[in-house]
Amino acid sequence: MLLHLSTWPEVATYLETSTGIILPIGSTEQHGPTGLIGTDAICAELIAKGVGEDTNALVAPTLNVGMALHHMEFPGSMSLRPSTLILVIRDYLVGLVQAGFTKFFLINGHGGNIATVKAAFAETYATVADLGLPQANLVQCHLANWFMVGAVIKRARELYGDQEGSHATPSEVAVTQFAYPATIKQAPLTTPVNRDHAIYGAADFRQRYPDGRMGSNPGLATPEHGQELYQLAVTELSKSYRQFLAAQ
Amino acid sequence: MLLHLSTWPEVATYLETSTGIILPIGSTEQHGPTGLIGTDAICAELIAKGVGEDTNALVAPTLNVGMALHHMEFPGSMSLRPSTLILVIRDYLVGLVQAGFTKFFLINGHGGNIATVKAAFAETYATVADLGLPQANLVQCHLANWFMVGAVIKRARELYGDQEGSHATPSEVAVTQFAYPATIKQAPLTTPVNRDHAIYGAADFRQRYPDGRMGSNPGLATPEHGQELYQLAVTELSKSYRQFLAAQ
Amino acid sequence: MLLHLSTWPEVATYLETSTGIILPIGSTEQHGPTGLIGTDAICAELIAKGVGEDTNALVAPTLNVGMALHHMEFPGSMSLRPSTLILVIRDYLVGLVQAGFTKFFLINGHGGNIATVKAAFAETYATVADLGLPQANLVQCHLANWFMVGAVIKRARELYGDQEGSHATPSEVAVTQFAYPATIKQAPLTTPVNRDHAIYGAADFRQRYPDGRMGSNPGLATPEHGQELYQLAVTELSKSYRQFLAAQ
Amino acid sequence: MLLHLSTWPEVATYLETSTGIILPIGSTEQHGPTGLIGTDAICAELIAKGVGEDTNALVAPTLNVGMALHHMEFPGSMSLRPSTLILVIRDYLVGLVQAGFTKFFLINGHGGNIATVKAAFAETYATVADLGLPQANLVQCHLANWFMVGAVIKRARELYGDQEGSHATPSEVAVTQFAYPATIKQAPLTTPVNRDHAIYGAADFRQRYPDGRMGSNPGLATPEHGQELYQLAVTELSKSYRQFLAAQ
Amino acid sequence: MLLHLSTWPEVATYLETSTGIILPIGSTEQHGPTGLIGTDAICAELIAKGVGEDTNALVAPTLNVGMALHHMEFPGSMSLRPSTLILVIRDYLVGLVQAGFTKFFLINGHGGNIATVKAAFAETYATVADLGLPQANLVQCHLANWFMVGAVIKRARELYGDQEGSHATPSEVAVTQFAYPATIKQAPLTTPVNRDHAIYGAADFRQRYPDGRMGSNPGLATPEHGQELYQLAVTELSKSYRQFLAAQ
Amino acid sequence: MLLHLSTWPEVATYLETSTGIILPIGSTEQHGPTGLIGTDAICAELIAKGVGEDTNALVAPTLNVGMALHHMEFPGSMSLRPSTLILVIRDYLVGLVQAGFTKFFLINGHGGNIATVKAAFAETYATVADLGLPQANLVQCHLANWFMVGAVIKRARELYGDQEGSHATPSEVAVTQFAYPATIKQAPLTTPVNRDHAIYGAADFRQRYPDGRMGSNPGLATPEHGQELYQLAVTELSKSYRQFLAAQ
Repeated sequence: MLLHLSTWPEVATYLETSTGIILPIGSTEQHGPTGLIGTDAICAELIAKGVGEDTNALVAPTLNVGMALHHMEFPGSMSLRPSTLILVIRDYLVGLVQAGFTKFFLINGHGGNIATVKAAFAETYATVADLGLPQANLVQCHLANWFMVGAVIKRARELYGDQEGSHATPSEVAVTQFAYPATIKQAPLTTPVNRDHAIYGAADFRQRYPDGRMGSNPGLATPEHGQELYQLAVTELSKSYRQFLAAQ
Repeated sequence: MLLHLSTWPEVATYLETSTGIILPIGSTEQHGPTGLIGTDAICAELIAKGVGEDTNALVAPTLNVGMALHHMEFPGSMSLRPSTLILVIRDYLVGLVQAGFTKFFLINGHGGNIATVKAAFAETYATVADLGLPQANLVQCHLANWFMVGAVIKRARELYGDQEGSHATPSEVAVTQFAYPATIKQAPLTTPVNRDHAIYGAADFRQRYPDGRMGSNPGLATPEHGQELYQLAVTELSKSYRQFLAAQ
Repeated sequence: MLLHLSTWPEVATYLETSTGIILPIGSTEQHGPTGLIGTDAICAELIAKGVGEDTNALVAPTLNVGMALHHMEFPGSMSLRPSTLILVIRDYLVGLVQAGFTKFFLINGHGGNIATVKAAFAETYATVADLGLPQANLVQCHLANWFMVGAVIKRARELYGDQEGSHATPSEVAVTQFAYPATIKQAPLTTPVNRDHAIYGAADFRQRYPDGRMGSNPGLATPEHGQELYQLAVTELSKSYRQFLAAQ
Repeated sequence: MLLHLSTWPEVATYLETSTGIILPIGSTEQHGPTGLIGTDAICAELIAKGVGEDTNALVAPTLNVGMALHHMEFPGSMSLRPSTLILVIRDYLVGLVQAGFTKFFLINGHGGNIATVKAAFAETYATVADLGLPQANLVQCHLANWFMVGAVIKRARELYGDQEGSHATPSEVAVTQFAYPATIKQAPLTTPVNRDHAIYGAADFRQRYPDGRMGSNPGLATPEHGQELYQLAVTELSKSYRQFLAAQ
Repeated sequence: MLLHLSTWPEVATYLETSTGIILPIGSTEQHGPTGLIGTDAICAELIAKGVGEDTNALVAPTLNVGMALHHMEFPGSMSLRPSTLILVIRDYLVGLVQAGFTKFFLINGHGGNIATVKAAFAETYATVADLGLPQANLVQCHLANWFMVGAVIKRARELYGDQEGSHATPSEVAVTQFAYPATIKQAPLTTPVNRDHAIYGAADFRQRYPDGRMGSNPGLATPEHGQELYQLAVTELSKSYRQFLAAQ
Repeated sequence: MLLHLSTWPEVATYLETSTGIILPIGSTEQHGPTGLIGTDAICAELIAKGVGEDTNALVAPTLNVGMALHHMEFPGSMSLRPSTLILVIRDYLVGLVQAGFTKFFLINGHGGNIATVKAAFAETYATVADLGLPQANLVQCHLANWFMVGAVIKRARELYGDQEGSHATPSEVAVTQFAYPATIKQAPLTTPVNRDHAIYGAADFRQRYPDGRMGSNPGLATPEHGQELYQLAVTELSKSYRQFLAAQ
C-alpha cells in the first residue's frame, strides 16, 4: 500500500490495525561509468514496495536525495548536508507520529546515509518527548540497509567475489537493471579501479576513485541477478519488518 | 532525460550543451476523500517528465514532501517545516551550481510550496555569492506552477466551472487518474464542502474543511480530462522552459 | 494606539476587548536615484498608524529591515536572510500569542517580503501548536500589502500609467513625500530604465536595473498624490482589518 | 543623516569619506505602570539621531525589538531569542560590510541586549573572515550603552538618588517624556517595588517585580530632565563615536 | 603532548613537523549502579594520553559530553543533541584546520557518539571546502573507538565472556578503576539485567534496562584488567595513528 | 563530589537534598608565550573542584572549549561559535533540569565566555518554559567568574600592580603553576606588550597583541601565588554558592 496512491481515509483505516510504516531512503549520486545516478533510490524504493506488498504495510514516498557529500565532485550528484537531512527526517517522523504512527522502518539504499539517519533517530526521539506527545515513548525507528541483508551479501559474493567492491557494485546495478531493463548502460570500465581507501572529502574522493567506482566491476551485473537479489532482500526484510512490528 | 536514469558521464556530456535542469516539487498531503495523497508530487513529476522529453532537458528526482503543515491533521500527510525546506532547496541547488548548472526550472504541484520555494531561491542566490562560485551571478531559478498555467486554468474552468475549487480539484485528480488509471478511488463526497476560507493552522484547516476538499468536486474528474490537462501543461511549460533557457 | 507609546497595563486593558494587533513590516533598500532607502518601512508604518487610528487597533513597532537580498549591491541596502526573517517573525508572533493576541494583521510595504512572511506564518502556526498554547488554534495571521490594495492600484494607474513600474514607483515615493515633505530628493533620472526582468541574485539585479528603478518614473510623484494614496490605503485596509477581526 | 531618509547614491557618496555607521538598538518591553513599552527603542533612536547630527554620521533604522525574554510575562512585551538576535545583527552587519562599511557604532537602550549583541559581534567577525571579504580585518563593532554614559549616570544619581533603580528608571522615562511630551502617562506607583534580585526567567521576574519596575520611581521623571540627560548622552557619545572612527 | 599543557609557540613548532592531532571524545552518562558517569570520557582521555605519549602526538582536551540522549532518564546523564554535536565538532575541526592541522584522529569512548561524529566529519569536509581553505582537500578525519579495538575485544571476551554486555561493561569499568582506583564503587547488581534490545528513546531505554546496564556484569572488573586493556588499546591505537599519519 | 566520578544512584541520592550543581567552563586558547593553552579551563576546573569540596556540591565535567574566536590566529586555540556555545549550554542545562536540577552555578575562567553564557541562560529559561517542565520557574543560573572575585582582584593588584594586564595574566598563570608545577614554561617575554585595545576579529587581535599577552607580565607568577589566589577564589565562591542555593 503506497502512501502516494492512498487517500487519507484509507490511511485512517490502516492506522486502526497498524501503526507501522516503511520509508525508503536513497541517494542521488554518481555510480561509476555505467551505474544510474538514482541507483540507491531506485533499489530502496523497489525493495520497499516489495516489502510493503508482502506485509501489507504502508510505504511512504522515497527520500530521493540523501547524504552524498563525498560524491559531489561528479556531476549529477546531489546531497543534503547531514544537518539538513537530520531536520528532514525529524520533520517526516514527527509529523507521522502526530498522526498516530509509531513504528518506522527505513529501507536504505546508501551506506553514506547510515550515520546521519541514526543521528536523526536520536533527534526524533528527543523531539517527540519534548512535544509531550502521548505516544512518544512508543516511537521506534529501525534502519534496514538492503545491501547489508545476509542473504544478499552471500549471493553477491557467490556471483561477484571481490569484484563486488563497495560502491557502484554489480549487485546494486543488477537491481536497477531488473527495475529498468530499458536503461542498461554500456561504457568502457577501463579506468583502473581502486578500493579500500577511507572516505574523506569530495575532491579527495574523486582523486582516489577517478571513475567513481570503489573496487567494483558493475559489468558483471545482469537483470536476472537483480531479480534474484531483489527477491532475497524482500524476503528477508519482510521478515524483519514483521518482527519489528511484533516486538514490544 | 531523467537524472536518476543517467550516469555521471552522461550528465557531464549534457552540461557541455546545457546548464539547465528541471526539478519537480510536489507534496504528500491529503487530497480529500478520493484524491491521492501523492497528487501534487505525481502531477509535478509526470508533467516534468513530459517537459523534459519535449525539451531534451535533464529532470531531477521529485521532491516528494513539501510544505503542507496546514494539512497535517489528516493522517498520511507529511510536511517539512518552511525553515527545513529552505535548507533542502538550498542544498539541492548549491550542489548543482557547483557542478555547473545555472538555470533551475522548478515544476511545482502544490500551492503551499510557493512561498517557501521563493524564499529558498533568495537564500540560494546569497549562498552561491557567499561561496564565491565563479558562475554565481549566472544562477537563475524559476518557479513554474503547472496548475497556474493559463491553458490549464482555462480548460479546467470549461470542464468544472466553480466546482474546480482550490484543493483536491478535479483537474489535479484527473491528472493522477491519467497517470494511475488503476487506482481511481471512489468514496461518497457528501460532506458539505466549504470554500474561500483563509488558511491558518492545521487544526483550524480541518475544522473548516472537514473532508479536506476546498470548494472542489473531484467526482467530475476523468482520466481523459487528465490527459488533456497534462498535455496543455506540458506544451506551455515546455515553451516556458525554452524561453527561460534562452533568456539572458 | 501605538504599542511603543503604551504601557503594559494599557495593553492588558486592550486585550480585554481585542486580541488583534497590526504589525508594519517594511524594508531598508535602495529605491532608485531619488527614492528614500526607508521607503517601504515609511509607507508601511504610516499606513499602519492610520489604520490603527481608524480602527482603535494596537500597532506594533515597524520591522524596518526585511528580505531585500536582491538589492544588496546598492549601498545602504540592508536585508535579513529569509531563514533569519522567519525566525524573527516567529519570535514576534509566538511571544504575542503567549500574551493573548491571536489576530495578526501585517501591513507590508515590500514585495520581496511576501514569500518569506508567508513561510513564517506557517512556521508560527506549527510552533504555537507544538507549544500546546491553549489559544493555538485561534491564531490567525493576515498579510496586507498596501501597494496591492485595489483602490491604490487603480489610482496609481490613473496617475502614472505604465510609468508606475514595479520598484521605486511614483506611488510609493509619493507616500514618502507626503510623510517627509522636507526630504524630497532631486536627481537626474536619465539612466535608461528597464522593466519586466525576473529577479535573481543581487549582482544580476544591479546589472539589469543599473540605477535601481524597475520600469518606474518616480519623478511623477507629488506629496499630494501621496496623501491621496495614503488615504485610499488606510480606508481599504481599515475595512480589511475590521473584517479580519470579525471573521471566525 | 538618516539612512531611511537617504538615497543610495547619497550613501555611495557618504562612503567616500566615512565607513562608519550608527545603529540604534532598543527593545519593546514593559517599563512599569507608567513607562512606555518602546522606552528603550525611543531613547536609543533619539540619542542616535542626535549623535548622527553632531558627527555627520549615517544612522541606520532602529532595531526595535531586542532580547527581552525576561519581560515576556507582561503583555505588550516582544523579544527575539538570543539565537535569533545574533543572526539579525550578523545579517545587518555583514551586508553593510559588503557595501563598504567597517566601523559599526551601536547605540543601545537596553541592558538585556548587551550579552547577545557582544556575542553577535564575535559571530560577525568570524563570518566576514569566512567570507574572505577584503576589508574583513578592518571591521570593528562598538557597543555604546547610553544609560551607562558617565555623565548620564552622575546626573541621574543627583536627580534621583537610589530611586533611579535599574529598570523603568526615571532617567529613561524622562528621555521618553522629552521625546513624546504628549504621551506622559500617569498611574499609581503604589505596588511595593523590589530591587537587586537577580534576573532569571520571565515568570520568576514577574513574581519578583510585580509591576515591572526594578527599584525605580519613574514618577520623578520630567521632560526637562529628559532633555538634559539626552544632551549629556549625545555629547559624550558623539565624542566616543569620533574617537572610535579615528582609532586604528 | 597535551594541548592544554602547551603554549601556542610550542604548537607552532609542533606544526612544523606534524599536522596530526588526537581528540578524545567521551560522554557523561549513567553506567549502571557501579559505573562512573564519566566512564566514556575517562577511558577516551586516558587512552588518548597514552597514544599521545607513544606517538609524540598532540592531544586536544576531551569532549566530555557527547550524544547520550537515550540515557537521559537516569539522573546525572548529560547529552548534546546530535544537531548540536555536529556543530561542536565542526567548530573544533574547522578552527584547527585554519591553524594548519589536517589529520584528525578522534579516540572515542562511547558507541552512541559514532553516528553523529561521522555525520560531523561529512559536514566538516564540506565546510572547509566552502571556506576555500588551501589545505581543504588534505583534511582527513578518523574515528577510532577504543572499545572496538581487536585486541581489546578479544581480551574482554576471554575475561568476561558474555557478561561483557554492551553498556557499563566490565572492560570499560576496569579501565576507570585503573584510572581512579580510589573511586571503585560497590553496589548490589541484583536487578535482572537485559540485553539485546534495540535502543530507542530515553524512557523506553530506562524501562528495558532498569538499572542502566545492558547485559553486563561490571562486578567482574578489576583495576588490573583495566591496566591490561588500557595497554592493549594504546598499543593498537598508536599503531593506527601512525598509519593514519603516514597514509596519503 | 565530581559528577564524572559518581554513579547515577549517587546522583539520585544527591538530588534528594540539593538541586544545585557547579559547572566549570573554560577555554582552549593561547595565553602568551608561557601561558598554557588550557589555562582558563584548568583554573575553572581546579577552583570548581575546590568549591565542590567546600560545599559538598556536585561538580559537572569542564566545558573545555568556549568562545575564543578572537584568539584563533594563534595555533592551538580552539573555539565554538557563539551560536554553537548557546546550544551547548542549553543542551547541558535543559537535560539537567529534566533530571531535577534547578540551580546552576557556572564557574568561568574566560572573559570571552561571559556574553555568550549570559545569552545562553536567557535561551535556556525560555526553553524550559516552552517545554512546560514543572520546575521551569525555579530554574536559576549564575555565572561566577573566578578572576573577578573581589579578593582575587585585590591580591593580584598587590602582587602584580598594572603588570596584571587582562590576558595571560600572572594571576591565572600562577594558578596553573599551582595546578601543574611540572609544566611551568619559560620563554623570553621580550615582545613589547600592548594593552587597552578593544577586541575585534582574530587577525586584528594578533596584530595588536603579537605574542598574545594583553598588558600582562606572566613572568611574575609563582606557584605559591597560585595557591594563594586559588584559596581566595574558592573561599569566596563557596560563600557565593551557598548564598545562591539559599536564595529563593
